[in-house]
Amino acid sequence: MNTALTTNDFNQIVTGRRSIRKYDPNVKISRDEMTEILRKATLAPSSVNMQPWRFLIIESPKAKAILAPLARFNQSQVETSSAVIAIFGDLNSINNAEEIYGKAVELGFMPNEVKEMQLAAISAHYAQLTPELNRETVLIDSGLVSMQLMLVARAHGYDTNPIGGYEKDKVTEAFGLDPERYVPVMLISIGKAADSGYPSVRLPIDQVATWK
Amino acid sequence: MNTALTTNDFNQIVTGRRSIRKYDPNVKISRDEMTEILRKATLAPSSVNMQPWRFLIIESPKAKAILAPLARFNQSQVETSSAVIAIFGDLNSINNAEEIYGKAVELGFMPNEVKEMQLAAISAHYAQLTPELNRETVLIDSGLVSMQLMLVARAHGYDTNPIGGYEKDKVTEAFGLDPERYVPVMLISIGKAADSGYPSVRLPIDQVATWK
Repeated sequence: MNTALTTNDFNQIVTGRRSIRKYDPNVKISRDEMTEILRKATLAPSSVNMQPWRFLIIESPKAKAILAPLARFNQSQVETSSAVIAIFGDLNSINNAEEIYGKAVELGFMPNEVKEMQLAAISAHYAQLTPELNRETVLIDSGLVSMQLMLVARAHGYDTNPIGGYEKDKVTEAFGLDPERYVPVMLISIGKAADSGYPSVRLPIDQVATWK
Repeated sequence: MNTALTTNDFNQIVTGRRSIRKYDPNVKISRDEMTEILRKATLAPSSVNMQPWRFLIIESPKAKAILAPLARFNQSQVETSSAVIAIFGDLNSINNAEEIYGKAVELGFMPNEVKEMQLAAISAHYAQLTPELNRETVLIDSGLVSMQLMLVARAHGYDTNPIGGYEKDKVTEAFGLDPERYVPVMLISIGKAADSGYPSVRLPIDQVATWK
């Protein structure tokens, strides 16, 4: 079914990305392929490698029906995409510290004494971290993974649309996630493009950058 | 001087990225090349295309000397990199709405009536936007551009290290930026890698993703 061409052309992937709002509704992304897309997306870096990003792959008609009224300016994306990926940031990501750093030792990526030092430093860091700063960190890290996800999607022959205008808190609740723990970040629709989107303007670099 | 090889291999760029903390101190990135790197990075999407990202390219010995004590766990990056790029989010990014959408009309990307409708919608959106949500949006958008910047850097033959552990507020102040307007996001050191960094572990996808 899915005969999407893939590309490995970095320049084409980056410079050709546009927000695509209409997809071929007949194209589904298999769970294996989506897993591979997410695997590469999550090679993104994160603060102390805590990987606070969490993904809800909304693809069944039932799940899309729950989402649709909560993203009412984006009906075409919800209806025609292969999936809408809801990105959340996990405020309790430190719970995975032992697993992540333990695995690094197991794989020979770091000596155990480095792990112990780093975990002690991370615990100390989290102990003094304000809720605001924790929240800001998971938002930034989720931004990093979201960008890489949109680019990896293109390498797999798909396009995306990042969506910020939706009822964030209601989506969290509708899918049964703890709102005290999971911060809604954005939706990303993904599928096989059915139109070519629109080009968009960027500010000149001398207006956004200063050399010091 | 700068004889960095460049690559267009998307897979290699994404899967081979590691945080690099030590660079060849003799390699400088020209202003032209840095501008091109930023130009491609800023092709990232942003909420209503407001592009709230701002970049301080800290490259002179004088500017690095200001930064060094404020990033004291990252001395090697500050000392040996071609530059440290301080990313900020501009809370007043809506000031550029007319310019961005006007240019889109001028370039034939959208009809004037679409521009007028969109600017009206954007104004209404900002009028009801809480300061917290505005801040969250610029952090997410700055995360998007930061990821694309790190990947584009690799296409240009450079490597990076995203740095969250620095004295954010003091950096804003030290470089004379209005702290009410510019939100510090992260530092990204960039240069020609002088070592190969370390591999790092990622959580299995079934732990971070749920299909619905």
